[in-house]
Amino acid sequence: MNIALLTIGDELCIGQIINTNASWIADRCTQIGAFITCHSTIKDNPLDIICELDRLRINNAMIIITGGLGPTHDDSTKATLCSYFHDTLIEHQDTLQFLQERYISRNIFFSERNREQAFVPSSCTVLKNPRGTAPGLLFAQTDCIFIALPGVPAEMKGIMQEYVLPIIQDRFLEENTTKPFYRTLITKGIPESTLADLIGNPSEFLAIQESLAFLPSFQGVRLRLGVYHHNAESAIQRLDVLEQILMNKAGTYIYAKNQENLLSKTTENLIILKKTLSVVESCTGGKLSSLCTDLPGSSVFFKGGFITYSNELKEQLVHVRHETLLEFGAVSEQTAIEMASGGREILHTDYCISITGIAGPGGGSDEKPVGLVWIGLSSNNRTFARKHIFGTDRDMNRERSVYAALSILYDELHHI
Amino acid sequence: MNIALLTIGDELCIGQIINTNASWIADRCTQIGAFITCHSTIKDNPLDIICELDRLRINNAMIIITGGLGPTHDDSTKATLCSYFHDTLIEHQDTLQFLQERYISRNIFFSERNREQAFVPSSCTVLKNPRGTAPGLLFAQTDCIFIALPGVPAEMKGIMQEYVLPIIQDRFLEENTTKPFYRTLITKGIPESTLADLIGNPSEFLAIQESLAFLPSFQGVRLRLGVYHHNAESAIQRLDVLEQILMNKAGTYIYAKNQENLLSKTTENLIILKKTLSVVESCTGGKLSSLCTDLPGSSVFFKGGFITYSNELKEQLVHVRHETLLEFGAVSEQTAIEMASGGREILHTDYCISITGIAGPGGGSDEKPVGLVWIGLSSNNRTFARKHIFGTDRDMNRERSVYAALSILYDELHHI
Repeated sequence: MNIALLTIGDELCIGQIINTNASWIADRCTQIGAFITCHSTIKDNPLDIICELDRLRINNAMIIITGGLGPTHDDSTKATLCSYFHDTLIEHQDTLQFLQERYISRNIFFSERNREQAFVPSSCTVLKNPRGTAPGLLFAQTDCIFIALPGVPAEMKGIMQEYVLPIIQDRFLEENTTKPFYRTLITKGIPESTLADLIGNPSEFLAIQESLAFLPSFQGVRLRLGVYHHNAESAIQRLDVLEQILMNKAGTYIYAKNQENLLSKTTENLIILKKTLSVVESCTGGKLSSLCTDLPGSSVFFKGGFITYSNELKEQLVHVRHETLLEFGAVSEQTAIEMASGGREILHTDYCISITGIAGPGGGSDEKPVGLVWIGLSSNNRTFARKHIFGTDRDMNRERSVYAALSILYDELHHI
Repeated sequence: MNIALLTIGDELCIGQIINTNASWIADRCTQIGAFITCHSTIKDNPLDIICELDRLRINNAMIIITGGLGPTHDDSTKATLCSYFHDTLIEHQDTLQFLQERYISRNIFFSERNREQAFVPSSCTVLKNPRGTAPGLLFAQTDCIFIALPGVPAEMKGIMQEYVLPIIQDRFLEENTTKPFYRTLITKGIPESTLADLIGNPSEFLAIQESLAFLPSFQGVRLRLGVYHHNAESAIQRLDVLEQILMNKAGTYIYAKNQENLLSKTTENLIILKKTLSVVESCTGGKLSSLCTDLPGSSVFFKGGFITYSNELKEQLVHVRHETLLEFGAVSEQTAIEMASGGREILHTDYCISITGIAGPGGGSDEKPVGLVWIGLSSNNRTFARKHIFGTDRDMNRERSVYAALSILYDELHHI
């Protein structure tokens, strides 16, 4: 089943906001076996919308549209769909009642503009949106199903999960066609081209329609295997075989699978080993701590930490010696070590990670360039620090520091 | 000048990664006056690529392509472009020399696979990529300029800034056509539909081809004005007039413009007032601190803080009283107040913000549901805490807490 995504909005087209809706929808549809043919992003312009609908319906059994359903004059999706299907707008009583109750309960005046949100094309099926004011609209044509959803991510996701994904799944069960299944193996510590040489020519182990993709990122290269099968069971069997081939070739670099990542694997190890963690951050200013607490239930292993952005706080809070800062500076092996060991002692955790570096753009010198980062790790076994030299971009340096710190902790946990 | 963006990659199409390249390129091109007609995302499939090139060249003077230039078998953009232009690959000596030097300096073996990166279609102009191994490729056809860039964001951005944006700018100066200019006004504390009612019918003050878009987000609704002019000067004059109209209608809610946001405005105020800030975070686990240090130069006002994820650390580090935690709980007005005042005293800053809440998905009760967040603020004037009830989504609750905290600080700074 081919599905095209059409995301509508001037703010997307001119790059004012990042299109996170398209990747979210594509990911969820792919996971249940649908085939996303393309994403198209266009402006809130009726003529452009109509052209895209005409183009995309040729090769797709479904078009999922987001954006342009809001209450203001620049939202043109609903009116355009109405005219595209030669339809008229009617007041939808359930939606009207829901909107009135919503506004009354929030003590907001229910204006004419709000009432307009309850008007929908007469031929569409309304998909309820309890999180917002614009309902989803479904138009079932003989060649293609058109679904329009609001652009607000939380509202779109709710309607996708409650209505659209089940509809896609139902159609699949009926059709019993082959569909794609994926498995991703995640590597660490090896460049893309070296990994490609290690794996050799993929056509030697892949059958027709099977695929292997290399996805580089600074968290490590991911290897994505793809196969086509009628059912999950035979797909899994075949993916197991292919995974084993890759493990034989590059297993020492592969540490995680699919949705796993360095954070999930590291915290999983901490929880299994019943170890606790604290952090002392300087240049990353809370980024590592924030990442550690992204996962629900992180309070099991994560106790807290210090943001010692200034030198004074490095001394006051985690007892870095004044002489250390004078002699070696804030960005040094010695300071990183004292931050980690000081933090661990004060916070009574099994592990403490410290990060101190020059994120940039200012603050660099010949001896200590922008991008120099020292990462310390203290445990009851040992305390040490590792030097990294990243690039010149502040955001990248902070991001890479956080993942380098996790990588050091992962390796340390892996070897005990 | 119409430009289309074509981003190529299975990983984008199936939603495995978010397409940040498209929005970055669109934003930069729009800023210098180009007109982005659409973004299209397709798989690494030669036939799909050729179809899109044929389609997009009809209405666009330039197509910017990213992705699929890497060294592995799943990268097909270079070979497809070569065949699309009936061209052959030749070894590009400058690129070869650069690659060899790069590998030698890093002590990595220079393999045949790496050498292939130096082969380019004979008719293209090579755009150097000092940050990576795949150079950019420019094909100047009479109807359309085709530019292919690597998909790695840092490499793509480098080539865009050094080559592509200057090329676009040159063509504009020659053509002297009208181009779009934008100005965004950012509001706070007013829902989209109320704001729309306040502003009324935009056609009463907008001329033909001028636009006003409403962009809702949990940081506040942004109002984007768009006008078309030959030159920046007259565009700015007209935007000034339109801005004044909006200020007259909704000025009390407008607090920032264009690239400004709550973070930049709040930190700007701190710097102007020469005030310092510290934070004590629980449920947000460092997110606010991390955000405060996103900006270069933040050490002027930001001193550091505590992550008191556990109750013990709330007592130990910022001296929340044991009785307070027993009587009112960790998520309470009293605890938020003691966290903020304790943090401020210990860290000797002018302001200290505290955040304590139930991010979810677990930990909620009837009395204290998931989404309940108390935000404290302490200054030498006063210490208080505000209650927020957000939703059920952990990530959203953490994100909204951080911006609610900034908003409280912004208001406090604004009224002194």
